[in-house]
Amino acid sequence: MTTAIRLTEKAVLPKGWRGAGLAAGLKKSGAPDMAMIFSDRPADAVATFTTNRICAATVRLDRTRIERYGTAHGIVVNSGQANACTGKAGLADAAEMADCSAKATGVAPEMFLVCSTGRIGIRLDMEKIRPGIARLADALAPGEAGGEAAAQGILTTDTRPKRRTTTFRSGDGKVCRVTGFAKGAGMIQPNMATMLAFVLTDAAVDRAAMARLFKDAVAQSFNRITVDGDESTNDSAFLLANGAAGNGTPLRPGVDGWDDFESAVRAITLALAQDMARDGEGASKFVTVRVEGARSAADAEKAARAIANSFLVKTSWSGGTPNWGRLMDAIGYSGAAVREDKVEIAYGDLVAVRNGVWAGETTDAALRKQLAGKEFSIRIDLHLGRGAAEVYTCDCTEEYVRINCD
Amino acid sequence: MTTAIRLTEKAVLPKGWRGAGLAAGLKKSGAPDMAMIFSDRPADAVATFTTNRICAATVRLDRTRIERYGTAHGIVVNSGQANACTGKAGLADAAEMADCSAKATGVAPEMFLVCSTGRIGIRLDMEKIRPGIARLADALAPGEAGGEAAAQGILTTDTRPKRRTTTFRSGDGKVCRVTGFAKGAGMIQPNMATMLAFVLTDAAVDRAAMARLFKDAVAQSFNRITVDGDESTNDSAFLLANGAAGNGTPLRPGVDGWDDFESAVRAITLALAQDMARDGEGASKFVTVRVEGARSAADAEKAARAIANSFLVKTSWSGGTPNWGRLMDAIGYSGAAVREDKVEIAYGDLVAVRNGVWAGETTDAALRKQLAGKEFSIRIDLHLGRGAAEVYTCDCTEEYVRINCD
Repeated sequence: MTTAIRLTEKAVLPKGWRGAGLAAGLKKSGAPDMAMIFSDRPADAVATFTTNRICAATVRLDRTRIERYGTAHGIVVNSGQANACTGKAGLADAAEMADCSAKATGVAPEMFLVCSTGRIGIRLDMEKIRPGIARLADALAPGEAGGEAAAQGILTTDTRPKRRTTTFRSGDGKVCRVTGFAKGAGMIQPNMATMLAFVLTDAAVDRAAMARLFKDAVAQSFNRITVDGDESTNDSAFLLANGAAGNGTPLRPGVDGWDDFESAVRAITLALAQDMARDGEGASKFVTVRVEGARSAADAEKAARAIANSFLVKTSWSGGTPNWGRLMDAIGYSGAAVREDKVEIAYGDLVAVRNGVWAGETTDAALRKQLAGKEFSIRIDLHLGRGAAEVYTCDCTEEYVRINCD
Repeated sequence: MTTAIRLTEKAVLPKGWRGAGLAAGLKKSGAPDMAMIFSDRPADAVATFTTNRICAATVRLDRTRIERYGTAHGIVVNSGQANACTGKAGLADAAEMADCSAKATGVAPEMFLVCSTGRIGIRLDMEKIRPGIARLADALAPGEAGGEAAAQGILTTDTRPKRRTTTFRSGDGKVCRVTGFAKGAGMIQPNMATMLAFVLTDAAVDRAAMARLFKDAVAQSFNRITVDGDESTNDSAFLLANGAAGNGTPLRPGVDGWDDFESAVRAITLALAQDMARDGEGASKFVTVRVEGARSAADAEKAARAIANSFLVKTSWSGGTPNWGRLMDAIGYSGAAVREDKVEIAYGDLVAVRNGVWAGETTDAALRKQLAGKEFSIRIDLHLGRGAAEVYTCDCTEEYVRINCD
């Protein structure tokens, strides 16, 4: 039976997990720039990576290891350099980061995964990373201390950490915990357009079931936010389950506790994804774009994405302008099936457009009020079918250009 | 035999054509906001329109008339209101604009075409348009006077008119003229993201040959510029040939003079398209993105467009930053076949990237110098095949956001 999931905005590591974060000197500012998470026992590991054909050395290494071994003891993370477009030397650097981390924690080298974010095309500063890894291994701590340190250590120019924790009981009464933390996507810093997300649990979970669940949860969360439409070379999301909670039968559909686990993973990934859109640098408004009544779910997503990625739309939001004509325009070129004379558009609960024309039921002033807040929703009904999709995004401000032109 | 085409930056109407432009009061600024072009004899007409599924009433009317009749006497144009998302009332307004124009010039109603640009979703101000049409018909003038007036009358917030004229001789020695004028695409004004282009000639041209040529010329010119990636509800381009030059055999491939006509149409459409990218509001730099060595021409175009439409790339240009990592990223998600270790990137003639990594042949300072000017070129070689494509675009500045947030 599913119970309502309550998330706390903390990173409290599940049993058997330890974490650390610190400043290794990669960032000039002296802010934390490295992190490590580690499980004493090998954890089942699944992940999704960027589909960009040009991807970082770290993504190549992790993809291979997860396919080959399916388990991992830990992940080491740096920011400052993305280790993308760095050729064979970059692959060697990524492998060395994993090797150093494995040696420092006393596990087999292939049991470590690696994440980098930062500028594309420059080599990792291994002179700083090597001692950083040694210090991380020494600093590993359990619970909230370790979780919060790791959640801080992965950030780049995010203005705040993004993390959530929840607990549930397995069928045999064991308390299981799920913790997730992430760093933001897009609008971050020149070439820092990288999303990293880590979801950890101490439940024992059937790996195949976990892989299916995570793939879908990522599709409904991290893949439903868009800041500037660019997809980075380094985007990675991981789900690791170490079984330290001691639940007997690994969770899978049909096993008591699975439904709660599924809800927890979906709720945490969605909350972290929305945090990313909220915290896009230069963003002043968080916008939910919901398209329903589409011929298919894929059509609904196309239309929602066209709106969320249109810079004409995003700039009008930053001015608080209910410019519904630009929404119509974006829907029209989205590739979704659309009949102009059926389109309905509402800002919050105010219907602006019916049958493809101004509905005359509200005023421009009332619509502007809807857009004046820091968060608002737009709902489009295409009145062609039952397909629906939601996308989460933010506005585009002059600040975005300022940050990214540098 | 083809001769080199020399374009003059003027709108000089070909024989039998007259034009006018004036302020009908649709724009608060008092600037010209209506235009008309008219041929005493019916002209063969071909056109290409926006592929947006939501399109203006004018586009619907013109598309139907051109398919049905294939000839036209004239086109009337207004700015201020786009007459898009205006339902049946909008269709009636468009038809009335054509009717008024036909009556004022003494031709059959179906022989007039109509173009509107401006804000989506509001009705045309017919009270101002009707008297505007009467005055336009009275003001019709031939040659440069009529051409320049019309080229001015179609502008919205373009900072300058966009027009070119050239002449050539038909096989039987007749002097033929081709004139084109246009208004800009994207980054114009809230919801003014509309391209209009008119190419007129006094040559007699085979209509089927003219249609094929124009479709390809538009694909290689207006469809190769991108300002913000949005496609408007009103984009339209027309080619009209009235035969007043008196050349005997209508031009078509194999007929003397066709090659010069083809070169003229291609050169004029390309020059007008490049003018649009140069004059994008808020744009400070004109950029040519050339991709070669792609597996196919379609792949080359995908990669070039991904770069030209990336706001991370466009904002970095506005800062004059040679951020080649963002180019790699965009190429990677473009959908084009790409092998990271084969990619070559050059700014002007300076190669920054070879085999997917920093080439080490130039300096950041030298690259910055390439980007400091008002125009520069980027060349990407994917080293996978012989596909090539060029796209013309501009940078994205804070000014763009300022203009569009209002």
